[in-house]
Amino acid sequence: MPIGLEQPKSLLNIKGIRLSACSAGIYDKKRDDLALIEICKDSIVTTAFTKNIFCAAPVKISKNNLTKTSPLYCLINSGNANAGTGKTGLSNAKAICKELANIVSCSEDEILPFSTGVIGEDLPVEKIKKTIPDLIKKLSDDSWLSAAKAIMTTDTIPKAISDQIKIGDTTINITGITKGSGMIKPNMATMLSFIATDARVTKDVLERIKLNALSKSFNRITVDGDTSTNDSFILIATSKAKTPIIDKLDSNEFLILENAIMNICKKLAQAIVRDGEGANKFISIQVDGGANESECLSAAYTIAESPLVKTAFTASDPNWGRIIAALGNAKIPNIDTKKIRIHINDVCIFDDDKRSDTYSEESGQREMSKEEIILKVELNRGDYSEEIWTTDLSHDYIKINAEYRS
Amino acid sequence: MPIGLEQPKSLLNIKGIRLSACSAGIYDKKRDDLALIEICKDSIVTTAFTKNIFCAAPVKISKNNLTKTSPLYCLINSGNANAGTGKTGLSNAKAICKELANIVSCSEDEILPFSTGVIGEDLPVEKIKKTIPDLIKKLSDDSWLSAAKAIMTTDTIPKAISDQIKIGDTTINITGITKGSGMIKPNMATMLSFIATDARVTKDVLERIKLNALSKSFNRITVDGDTSTNDSFILIATSKAKTPIIDKLDSNEFLILENAIMNICKKLAQAIVRDGEGANKFISIQVDGGANESECLSAAYTIAESPLVKTAFTASDPNWGRIIAALGNAKIPNIDTKKIRIHINDVCIFDDDKRSDTYSEESGQREMSKEEIILKVELNRGDYSEEIWTTDLSHDYIKINAEYRS
Repeated sequence: MPIGLEQPKSLLNIKGIRLSACSAGIYDKKRDDLALIEICKDSIVTTAFTKNIFCAAPVKISKNNLTKTSPLYCLINSGNANAGTGKTGLSNAKAICKELANIVSCSEDEILPFSTGVIGEDLPVEKIKKTIPDLIKKLSDDSWLSAAKAIMTTDTIPKAISDQIKIGDTTINITGITKGSGMIKPNMATMLSFIATDARVTKDVLERIKLNALSKSFNRITVDGDTSTNDSFILIATSKAKTPIIDKLDSNEFLILENAIMNICKKLAQAIVRDGEGANKFISIQVDGGANESECLSAAYTIAESPLVKTAFTASDPNWGRIIAALGNAKIPNIDTKKIRIHINDVCIFDDDKRSDTYSEESGQREMSKEEIILKVELNRGDYSEEIWTTDLSHDYIKINAEYRS
Repeated sequence: MPIGLEQPKSLLNIKGIRLSACSAGIYDKKRDDLALIEICKDSIVTTAFTKNIFCAAPVKISKNNLTKTSPLYCLINSGNANAGTGKTGLSNAKAICKELANIVSCSEDEILPFSTGVIGEDLPVEKIKKTIPDLIKKLSDDSWLSAAKAIMTTDTIPKAISDQIKIGDTTINITGITKGSGMIKPNMATMLSFIATDARVTKDVLERIKLNALSKSFNRITVDGDTSTNDSFILIATSKAKTPIIDKLDSNEFLILENAIMNICKKLAQAIVRDGEGANKFISIQVDGGANESECLSAAYTIAESPLVKTAFTASDPNWGRIIAALGNAKIPNIDTKKIRIHINDVCIFDDDKRSDTYSEESGQREMSKEEIILKVELNRGDYSEEIWTTDLSHDYIKINAEYRS
C-alpha cells in the first residue's frame, strides 16, 4: 500500500498539450499501456536521461532526435522496456515512430519514444502500430490522468499533480505525471516523468529550472539503489500564457516558476518512494552540518541503502547501532565521531560517541513504528545540508522481485 | 542452511599457540561466548582492522596497543560488539584486559581485545572478569574448534580450517578460524579472523603475505554491502618451526607459504558467504578483460549488491535484464556495450548488445536454480580479472534482520 498517497485529482489542462491513452495489448490483462503526448509548435522542451551504459533503444533515439530538432510528440509504452535488445530494439523503436510520423505528417525526428517494463524482450511493434491511429484520434486536453495510468508498471497508484501560480496578473498552470516503483536510485530513478507548463520561458531558463529541480527531487530518492536503463524526464513549456517571456535567471518570475516546478518534481519523486516496491515506511534522511554537498549525500545514501538499516525500519526496531555502522562507512574524511548527533523524529538516539543519555528503547520504538520517519544526522562540521527519501526493505520487496518477473 | 559447508574437522595444533573457550553468560542461552588465544613470545603478528569511522572500543585499543608492543593474548567475546559505547566502552575493554594482565603477569598493552555482537550495549564487564580465571586454566593446544564456536554470532556453523606445507624437509602447520555471516562487505567484512602458523618469517614477509591474502579473500566478499564496526584480522607466525627464517619476498619458500595462507583465507572468506544470512546460493562473480583492477571490482560489486539481481537469484529467475541494468551503473568510463559478454555458468546470456542468440529461457533457468553459480562478465577491453563472492537476497535475510536484534 502506498504511504500517504491518494488518487490524483483536479489535474489542470496545459494549453498546447494534448494527451491520449489506449491498450495495445502489451500487458496480458486489459489495461492501457500506450500513451501519446502532443506538444504544440514553439514549445520549449528540456530533458534528462538515465546514465546507465545499457540505456534502452528509445533513450538512444530520443537523445539523438533532440540534437536535431524540438519534439512534437512523446510516444510512450509500458510493459516492455525495449532495453538490452541490440539493433532490433533500435529498428523497432524507429518503426513505431515512423508509423506515427506518417499519420500526423511530421518528421520522425520530431517524435521521442519512451518505454518502460521488462528488459530484454523485443517490442511488440505490430500491436503498437495497429493502436496508433486510435491513440491519435483520442488526443484531448484533459487526459493527463489516463496517460499517468497508461505508463504505470509495478506502480500501485497513478502519480500526477498540478499547481497554479501567478506571473503578474496571469495564471500559469503546471501539471506533471510520473511512474516508478522499483529499480529506483538517483540519476533518474526507474522512472518516466512528463511535466508541462504554459509559461513563456527561454531555453536557458528552462534548462536551469530542470537542473535545479532534478537535484532536489528525482535525484534525491532511492528505493533499492538500482538505476534503470530507461529513466527519462521531460519538461515542457508551451509558451501559451500571455505574459512577457521569462528570460532572466535571477528575476522574481524565474524564482516563482522554479519554485513551483521544483515542488511538483519533489512531490512526484516522493510519490515514487511512497509507492516503492514493498514499502511500509516513508523515510526522509536529513544530513545537516556537512562540509560540502557531496559528504552530506554520501552519508545519506550509505544509510538509506544499507539493507541492515532498511530491515530495522521494517521491524520498527530502533537498532541505532546499524545506523551508525552504516554512517561509519560513508566516505567522510577526518570526521570526529564525538561531534555527531542522530535523531529519529524528535528522539535523540546518538550523542557524544554513544547512545544518547536521554534515549529510551521505548521512545525509539515508538518513533520507529510510525509510517513516516525523519532520520536526522548532524555532522556538526560545516554549513551544508541535504535531504533524500527512501523506504524500508520488507518481505514484500522480496516477494515482488523474486516471485514476479518485472 | 550453509551452502556446501561441513563441520570443520582435523584441525592442526600450532606450536606456540594455546586456546580456550568458556561461557561468560553474555548470551542468554548457555553457549561459549568468550575465547582466549595465547601467543608465545617472539611470535611475529600482523593485523588489519575495519575502516568504519565508528570502529568499536576494542578495535581502538588493539590498534593502540600494537603501536607499543607485540601481543601475547587475544581476548575475544561474542554477544556484544562494545561499539557505539563512547568512553564507557573504552574503559570497559581496558578493565577486562587489566584483569587478564594481572593474572598472567603481563602488560595490559600485550593484550588485544576483540568483541562481536550487538552494537550499542555496554559490555558486561563483571561477567567477563569472573570467567577469565577459568579461561586461563583451560588453555590448551587443541582448542581451535572450541574457540571457533565461541566467537560465532549469527553464524550457523563454526568456520575453521587447517593446512600443511613443506618448507624444505620441515612440515609447517597453518590453522585459521573466522566468524561472520551478515553485515559483510569488503574492507574486512563483519568478521573476526585469527590465523596462525608455526613458520619462521620476518615481519616484512608476514605483512606482505597479509596484504596479498586479504586482497584476494576477505576483501572480496559481500553479503549485504554493510561493513561492520568490529572487523579484525590477525595473522600470527610463532616461529617454532625448525627452518631457516623466510626473509625474502621473492623466494620459493615465501611463495609456498603465501599461497597456503592465501588459500586458507579464501576458504574462510568463502565460508562466511556460504553461511551468509538467509543465503540460498553461493555466487562467484568473475569479471574478465577489464582495463584495470578497479573497474573489474566496480563491475563485480555493482552486480553483487543489486537487490534486484540478488532477488532474481533467490527466485532462480534468469532475469538477465537486471544483471545488465546493474552492470550499466558500474563506473566504467567509455565502455562499449557491444563488446560485453555475460555467462551464467556455461550458458551465454548476453552478447552483441542483446540476449545471446544461443540463449534459451530453459537453459538460463536450469543454471540459475543451482546452489553454486558462476556469473562471468567479459568486458573485452583489457587484461585484468577479478573475482568476488556473494549470496542471493531471500525472505530469510529479511526474517533474520527484521525479526531478531543482532
